[in-house]
Amino acid sequence: MKDPINLLSKFDLFSDHWSPKVIAEMNDYQFKVVKLKGSFVRHKHEETDEVFIVIEGSMHIELSDKTVEINQGEMAVVPKGQLHRPFANGECKVLLVEPRGTINTGDAGGKQQAPNDVWI
Amino acid sequence: MKDPINLLSKFDLFSDHWSPKVIAEMNDYQFKVVKLKGSFVRHKHEETDEVFIVIEGSMHIELSDKTVEINQGEMAVVPKGQLHRPFANGECKVLLVEPRGTINTGDAGGKQQAPNDVWI
Repeated sequence: MKDPINLLSKFDLFSDHWSPKVIAEMNDYQFKVVKLKGSFVRHKHEETDEVFIVIEGSMHIELSDKTVEINQGEMAVVPKGQLHRPFANGECKVLLVEPRGTINTGDAGGKQQAPNDVWI
Repeated sequence: MKDPINLLSKFDLFSDHWSPKVIAEMNDYQFKVVKLKGSFVRHKHEETDEVFIVIEGSMHIELSDKTVEINQGEMAVVPKGQLHRPFANGECKVLLVEPRGTINTGDAGGKQQAPNDVWI
């Protein structure tokens, strides 16, 4: 068993936004820390649900019919296949949980696509 | 997409120890809240890793060769097949992540085996 991981400490190791870093694996799933600020591309993940856990700050997810706010200490699950556009007015620190290989921009690709499987 | 879930609020809904309650699912994985206090049975999960995220308080996991402390804001992954005995000196609020169907006592069974798939 590896040493426990302090979540907030991991966020001190990088400053870029919308670029998830892997901190742990459970079976074929990865736990990733990511800083959000500003707007992200609207996208979906056809093959998987995606979990957002807000560690610090707050974020929003714009869906086709509503916009959901996720605050510090809250988690939300975006179902697979559902179009969503995350955004954050201030900087928000998030823990993502999703299968290894999941690309941050899903089906959309584009400029905001981050390198995958980057560990920190 | 379901409404976001406030983690700490979920812990206000029950008081028993060592009895995980499901709060969300991602694909075939479940997120469970559990309160730990005192000692738990030594056990292993042959088929899966198991994630502990400490939301409040602190806990320990006794392994065969060492004892690991996990504090508030930290997470740890117990690898599949590894014998472990969780314990907490004071009450500790934990978020577990593991596949649907995972039994809290793993291979050990016994008095501390909790009902599975109980939602809160």
